[in-house]
Amino acid sequence: MQKKITTTITARGYELDSYGHLNNAVYLNYFEHARWEFFRTLDLYRIIAAFDHLPVVTDVHIRYQREIRLFDELIIESFCIQEKPYLVFRQKINNKTTGVTAARATTKLIFLDKNKIAIDVPAEIGEMIQQ
Amino acid sequence: MQKKITTTITARGYELDSYGHLNNAVYLNYFEHARWEFFRTLDLYRIIAAFDHLPVVTDVHIRYQREIRLFDELIIESFCIQEKPYLVFRQKINNKTTGVTAARATTKLIFLDKNKIAIDVPAEIGEMIQQ
Amino acid sequence: MQKKITTTITARGYELDSYGHLNNAVYLNYFEHARWEFFRTLDLYRIIAAFDHLPVVTDVHIRYQREIRLFDELIIESFCIQEKPYLVFRQKINNKTTGVTAARATTKLIFLDKNKIAIDVPAEIGEMIQQ
Amino acid sequence: MQKKITTTITARGYELDSYGHLNNAVYLNYFEHARWEFFRTLDLYRIIAAFDHLPVVTDVHIRYQREIRLFDELIIESFCIQEKPYLVFRQKINNKTTGVTAARATTKLIFLDKNKIAIDVPAEIGEMIQQ
Repeated sequence: MQKKITTTITARGYELDSYGHLNNAVYLNYFEHARWEFFRTLDLYRIIAAFDHLPVVTDVHIRYQREIRLFDELIIESFCIQEKPYLVFRQKINNKTTGVTAARATTKLIFLDKNKIAIDVPAEIGEMIQQ
Repeated sequence: MQKKITTTITARGYELDSYGHLNNAVYLNYFEHARWEFFRTLDLYRIIAAFDHLPVVTDVHIRYQREIRLFDELIIESFCIQEKPYLVFRQKINNKTTGVTAARATTKLIFLDKNKIAIDVPAEIGEMIQQ
Repeated sequence: MQKKITTTITARGYELDSYGHLNNAVYLNYFEHARWEFFRTLDLYRIIAAFDHLPVVTDVHIRYQREIRLFDELIIESFCIQEKPYLVFRQKINNKTTGVTAARATTKLIFLDKNKIAIDVPAEIGEMIQQ
Repeated sequence: MQKKITTTITARGYELDSYGHLNNAVYLNYFEHARWEFFRTLDLYRIIAAFDHLPVVTDVHIRYQREIRLFDELIIESFCIQEKPYLVFRQKINNKTTGVTAARATTKLIFLDKNKIAIDVPAEIGEMIQQ
C-alpha cells in the first residue's frame, strides 16, 4: 500500500501576483514543500544522509485547474511510487473549503551517489514508501 | 515561420538553494520571464489589453537536465505555436558559455474573455506569432 | 492598549539559501505575511476597500539575531501604533521551541488616497488598532 | 577612496505583486544581488573562501521612495565602508530612464570565523574595498 502524506497550507499575501491570485511558481514551491514534509514524516532524510545520496528533480509537470486566492486554505496530498530508476511523486492541491482540486503535479526524482552518478532508488527508501 | 525570441539572464546569488545551485522554482520563473519578454517584443500586451483578454497558464512541464550555478550566463530560447484552443510555448535554457541545454519547458496557455470564459487564441495574436 | 497579533509559521525547504539557513529576504516575507494576518484579524481590509485607500510600505528595518533552520517553528508577534502620518509595525520572530528571538522588524506604512496622495492614517483604522 | 560598483537590472513580470508593482521583498533581493556582484567584482569570494570566513547580514534598513514597474530599467549603486566590527553597504536603486531614486538601503554584515565566532572585517577585505 502506498503512503499518503497530507500537508496543509494557507495562501499568503506576498505570494500573489499582479492578477491578484497565486503566482504559477508558488504552486511549484507548495509541491516542493509537501515533498520535504513527506521525506520528513517518513524520516527519509536520515537514510539519505547516512548513504550520502542526493535526490535530484528531473521532471516537473503541473496542471493548473483553479486559481488560488489570498487566505485560501489548502490540503496537499502526496503519493510516491518507484518507477526505476526514478522516484515519482503524484500530488494534488485541494481547496479545503470547497473540496475542489486546484492543481495536480507529477515530479520525478533521481538519486545521485557521492560521485554524482545516477543510481537506482536506494532499497531502504523503496521499502519505507511502501510499508 | 515561427518567431524565436531569445532572452539572456545571469543566475543570482539569492536564487541558489541549500544545495548551492539554482532552485527548481527559479527555472519556472526564468521561463515565465522569457514569455513576458516574448509578449513584450511582439507587442502582444497591447492586443490583450485592447480586447480585455487574460492569458492563463494551464500546464507547465519542465525537464531539468543540468544544474545552474552562481553567475552562470544563460540564453533562453522561446518559440510559440497554436494548438487550438491553446497557445503553446516551447522553451529551453542554454548555458551561454558551454552551449549545453540546462532545461526545457512546454507551457500551455488558454485565453479567458472578460467573463472568464475560455476562448480560442485571438486571431490577432495567432497572426503575430506566425509573421 | 495595543493589539498584539501572533502568527505561527514553519520554515520550509524551498526557503533555504546556499548557506542552508533561511534567506534574508524570507524574513521580510514572514513579517509581511504577519501584517496581512494582522489586517485580516482586525478586518481592516474591509475598511481600506470601503475608502479606496492604499497602504504603502515606506521603511523596513530588520535586525537579524539568529539563523532560522529547516522546519523551525516560529511565532511572529506583531504590534502596531500610529506615529502620524505613519502606521508603524513592531514585530519579532521568536523560535517556538527555544523562545529565542530570531529577528526584529520595524515597518512604516503610509496611506494613499485614490489619487495616490499621502494622507493620515484613516481614523477608523486608528480606532481599530487601539481598541 | 571608496569603491562604487554599479549593477543594472530590469524588473520582471513574476516579481510584481497584487498591486501591479514590484513587491517589497524583491527590492531586498536586488540589493543582495548587487552585493554579490560587488564581492565578485573585487574578487572577495576568493579571500573569504581562503580564510574560511562567513559574512552574515545583521541589519537591513530599506527606504522605499518610488514604486518600480514592469520592465523598468534600474541601476543599483553600491558603496561599502568599514565601521568596526561591521562591513556596511550603502546602496540605492535608481531608475535608469528618469534618474529618480526608487529606494535606498543600508546593510550591515559581520564576519564569522570557522567556529562561528564574530571577528573584525578581515584586513585583506578592508584593503580591497579602499583601494
